[in-house]
Amino acid sequence: MNSLEGLSINLATVREQFTLAQAVDAVAPWRDQVQAAGLKEAAAMVRANGLRVTGLCRGGMFVAADAAGRIAAIEDNKRAIDEACALGADCLVLVVGGLAQDSKDIVAARQMVVDGIGAVLDTARANRMKLAIEPLHPMYAADRACINTLEQALDVCDALGEGLGVAVDAYHVWWDPKLAEQIARAGAAGRIFAHHICDWLVPTRDLLLDRGMMGDGVVDLRGMRRMIEAAGYSGPQEVEIFSAQNWWRRPGDEVIATCIARYHSECVV
Amino acid sequence: MNSLEGLSINLATVREQFTLAQAVDAVAPWRDQVQAAGLKEAAAMVRANGLRVTGLCRGGMFVAADAAGRIAAIEDNKRAIDEACALGADCLVLVVGGLAQDSKDIVAARQMVVDGIGAVLDTARANRMKLAIEPLHPMYAADRACINTLEQALDVCDALGEGLGVAVDAYHVWWDPKLAEQIARAGAAGRIFAHHICDWLVPTRDLLLDRGMMGDGVVDLRGMRRMIEAAGYSGPQEVEIFSAQNWWRRPGDEVIATCIARYHSECVV
Repeated sequence: MNSLEGLSINLATVREQFTLAQAVDAVAPWRDQVQAAGLKEAAAMVRANGLRVTGLCRGGMFVAADAAGRIAAIEDNKRAIDEACALGADCLVLVVGGLAQDSKDIVAARQMVVDGIGAVLDTARANRMKLAIEPLHPMYAADRACINTLEQALDVCDALGEGLGVAVDAYHVWWDPKLAEQIARAGAAGRIFAHHICDWLVPTRDLLLDRGMMGDGVVDLRGMRRMIEAAGYSGPQEVEIFSAQNWWRRPGDEVIATCIARYHSECVV
Repeated sequence: MNSLEGLSINLATVREQFTLAQAVDAVAPWRDQVQAAGLKEAAAMVRANGLRVTGLCRGGMFVAADAAGRIAAIEDNKRAIDEACALGADCLVLVVGGLAQDSKDIVAARQMVVDGIGAVLDTARANRMKLAIEPLHPMYAADRACINTLEQALDVCDALGEGLGVAVDAYHVWWDPKLAEQIARAGAAGRIFAHHICDWLVPTRDLLLDRGMMGDGVVDLRGMRRMIEAAGYSGPQEVEIFSAQNWWRRPGDEVIATCIARYHSECVV
């Protein structure tokens, strides 16, 4: 097979070094990168280079302290759906938001997320753009996403219906005692829309920016991929590494080459 | 009521400043502190001062790369049970251990934990010492504890039977979408043996040593206490704050006074 087949690079991985113009075969850009290029120009670039866009990062952030904030979030997510369509993305990834400002009410935050997704789902369906809830690691519950397990995300999917699924990111879910069960559930429901990879380092020195290259940590990436393929998903593995002190400081070509090598040595089943 | 009623100080909170000799009415000492004092001397000190020992920290660490390591862990846990009995502790807290050295097999680690607890449970029962599994936050799954949710801990309790319960630590479980449900389950089964408090800071600057004083973070401590009392547990709230850059640097008297004030303003229902 093509040495890059099945591999996508989330452009956060090389965000300090690369622009959208310098991509590999399949990518997951961030909205700020698309905006920097210009949406039309980015879409033309994608077409001209035959790029696959595995996901647009990111929609979500539905939680706000007041109704005006929540309405603004819904409008922004509708724009994100348009952008994902323009880029021909496989899905729009949703990082749903944490607690509202000065709030300790995570139950209320979770309800705002359900309401927010519900308010944009018809737009997504009408545009045939899949929405992928990305459950984030519980250490981000306060400030980034109050959906923290696959089970919780799939409960939201079941409540809201079709067009909604999950992005299974190894970094966020590897620890989950219900991982195998919930990946099987997600697959049976046709709700696995994306598979992200990187590794959990021991020790982890920063809550946000110390993710590891595949093979440098403790995640059984091949085992997880087996679960995901057994559940019926054979789409790309998307490398997403936030690494302020290591990979973001290296030359972009070296990072991409390492991603490719490790994808083959650690991730393919 | 007595201003300290219902409050216990985990001595990790003042570990840089205090020894066991300088405690408040109720404490949770660590085994190294007991060892530094001498077990007999520590037990005499507890009796002479009428101290309540809410829990001994800690047993557990059942995961090891080979059988010899696992047997050594079991023997060490039996000694910890003896120490907890000598101190008249309410329970022995179990931090169960993470992955084995060079292993990525978290399923195997979890089985070692079940086997290890099973191997010491008869000793605990014979000595009427309760064992409290403390589910740790998922960010510690690799290196400290592979039991990461109340649901998972309670499943282990159900599998192994009486004498086993949970320590509900706000820091570790506040994010859990099943928190209310699983606290109710734990209470109904008579399995809440301890309740630990501190706060989750935003941002959190270190995975281990940046816990917050109650009221300085985002955890709804009063709400959680209401759940716990409604579930039938009215025992002490034990303050456990690992804080290398803040509380460990302040005078011990100030830390204790702040714990007491915040206990009353943030935690009592």
